[in-house]
Amino acid sequence: MPEIHQARRDRLRPAIAALDADAALITSPPNVRYLAGLASSNASVLVPASGAAVLATDSRYALTASRDCGDLELVTERDIEPALARLAAGRGLRRVAFEAHEMTVERHQAFVAAAAGHGATLSLVPLGRAVERLRMVKDEAEIALLAQACAITSRALADLLAGLRPGQTEAELAALLERRMGELGAERPAFETIIASGPNGAIPHHVPGGRAVRRGDLVTIDCGARYGGYHADLTRTVAVGEPAGWQREIYGLVAAAQQAGIEAAVPGADVGGVDAAARSVIAAGGHGEHFTHGLGHGVGLEIHEAPIMGYGRAGTLVDRVPITVEPGIYLPGRGGVRIEDTLVVRAGSGPAAPQEILTTTTRELTVL
Amino acid sequence: MPEIHQARRDRLRPAIAALDADAALITSPPNVRYLAGLASSNASVLVPASGAAVLATDSRYALTASRDCGDLELVTERDIEPALARLAAGRGLRRVAFEAHEMTVERHQAFVAAAAGHGATLSLVPLGRAVERLRMVKDEAEIALLAQACAITSRALADLLAGLRPGQTEAELAALLERRMGELGAERPAFETIIASGPNGAIPHHVPGGRAVRRGDLVTIDCGARYGGYHADLTRTVAVGEPAGWQREIYGLVAAAQQAGIEAAVPGADVGGVDAAARSVIAAGGHGEHFTHGLGHGVGLEIHEAPIMGYGRAGTLVDRVPITVEPGIYLPGRGGVRIEDTLVVRAGSGPAAPQEILTTTTRELTVL
Repeated sequence: MPEIHQARRDRLRPAIAALDADAALITSPPNVRYLAGLASSNASVLVPASGAAVLATDSRYALTASRDCGDLELVTERDIEPALARLAAGRGLRRVAFEAHEMTVERHQAFVAAAAGHGATLSLVPLGRAVERLRMVKDEAEIALLAQACAITSRALADLLAGLRPGQTEAELAALLERRMGELGAERPAFETIIASGPNGAIPHHVPGGRAVRRGDLVTIDCGARYGGYHADLTRTVAVGEPAGWQREIYGLVAAAQQAGIEAAVPGADVGGVDAAARSVIAAGGHGEHFTHGLGHGVGLEIHEAPIMGYGRAGTLVDRVPITVEPGIYLPGRGGVRIEDTLVVRAGSGPAAPQEILTTTTRELTVL
Repeated sequence: MPEIHQARRDRLRPAIAALDADAALITSPPNVRYLAGLASSNASVLVPASGAAVLATDSRYALTASRDCGDLELVTERDIEPALARLAAGRGLRRVAFEAHEMTVERHQAFVAAAAGHGATLSLVPLGRAVERLRMVKDEAEIALLAQACAITSRALADLLAGLRPGQTEAELAALLERRMGELGAERPAFETIIASGPNGAIPHHVPGGRAVRRGDLVTIDCGARYGGYHADLTRTVAVGEPAGWQREIYGLVAAAQQAGIEAAVPGADVGGVDAAARSVIAAGGHGEHFTHGLGHGVGLEIHEAPIMGYGRAGTLVDRVPITVEPGIYLPGRGGVRIEDTLVVRAGSGPAAPQEILTTTTRELTVL
């Protein structure tokens, strides 16, 4: 679908013009994929203020690029920076916007030095997160891929829970879940599955290990499938055996906080305000200091992308922005609860019109 | 095993001293893992020229860090740069070596600006790939993890080949193989499995798709398990049905080239010379222009690490360096062959004493 990528590059041009630049050099792999359609660990796109864009990659990706990216001029070199610098010099580019948040100090220096070697004085100016801002709002084809990733994830989690028994280890459950996602069509896990049982549930990013699930545990499962390049993100905390009072209490608080966050996540909402809507519920319940991370984040070609919704973050939600809403309470030494869904902010939604929640697993406390 | 990480940090100190620096700021995730024992997407280590090192990470990793990295001073902050800059300023550090090949232009500027905000004038000097050079030579515990990753990979490939039938798609075979690696104990695939059948075999980094394997195909399978953080890398090309003359011919050339490369990969060998030993076999067979990538690379905490063995690369192999040897021939529109093993360069090895080849799959042409 080269025309989709052409249209995306056209949408970047105002950002280039605003910087009075002759071109933008895009080096972030997901941004390259978004603008050119090539998934590669070593590729860059040079988008000029006007005229044809250039895709540079190495020989490993050359055939794929010539097959899929026929709308771009193609440069194949092992070392991309010198090749693009030569090309920029040859075209007389003087001011190039670059991705300062992605380009390393070393590559930056190599690019400038290579241009100087061709007699050109290139001024590199930071582009900022212009492509990330474009990527934040998804088109319907992207949302369909994300929905499929979420459907696979919800289904795989349901299948895992149906078979979960005390005695299984965290690592074993993580392997079973990832395998099931693969069977259901996932390209691969969107990230390393978290299974945190009992006291490990107090560690938000716990790495699943040899601990066996026991009766009386809360078990937090944070997982996602990748499909067509798009990442799902889903967390549920389940009780193994009848939960204790403190477990029910923190589950109820997190569930109420998540509901408040979901309801607040409407077009026009400030991301800090959405975080606050959920956070205030947990704080009112006396656990403010146990909710130690932000409320959620955008999802798409990356598992974490704009907008980031956290305490004091700035930004406004708009139509067609997929986000996660994932409050948690973590009690060191005891355990924790996190509940997370992937949903799409939609125009016209609000308390009266439910959000488009792509992960469909029940949010009631599941007792196994 | 904090003492291992302490010893590794001690081995870094000569590089810091050679730059006349007060400390090294390590920001590359595998380098942080190597020096501190924390696997995290957001962590840095400040290694002073003398005295205790500091590990900075965010709240998601704080409990894991305090459990596993007790030998380091721990700083927990959402934004690591300002926190470490403040600490560096407070300690009176004036010259800090940093990883210019990993740190982005933006993070670099943030670090310098934050230090200036605390009244300190920090001079940042490139450390170069000092930690990568340390990581190149593995200790026996690392080699044992790598050997286990390779054993899982060889076994999973054998199981896949035992069931491979015409009609199965590339994507299906990739999913089966990755699932089998998981069953055998892999944490996850070391990289995205490549299954390239028929004409797709001409694309070195082909993404497995909907093409069904047919009688008469060569099928290239490039796969690896990750185990304990260490990455295996194995490629075999198999024939589905009796191979044609041209298929046997290029297979024979690649196999001979690989053998020449393996025999050349002894302590003291120049990496460019090892590449040349294999490349000259393919060139002599008339296919020099169809071997479009380097011969191999180091493997360890990353799938591609030092040393890189390619045309014109410089460097010397030494004892206990794990590498891949992976020549290939790619014929656009027709297909290709690649054969790859992971092996350890060992003192005392040579033509008479076989290398320690960790991937044990037969290198004879398998005809299914």
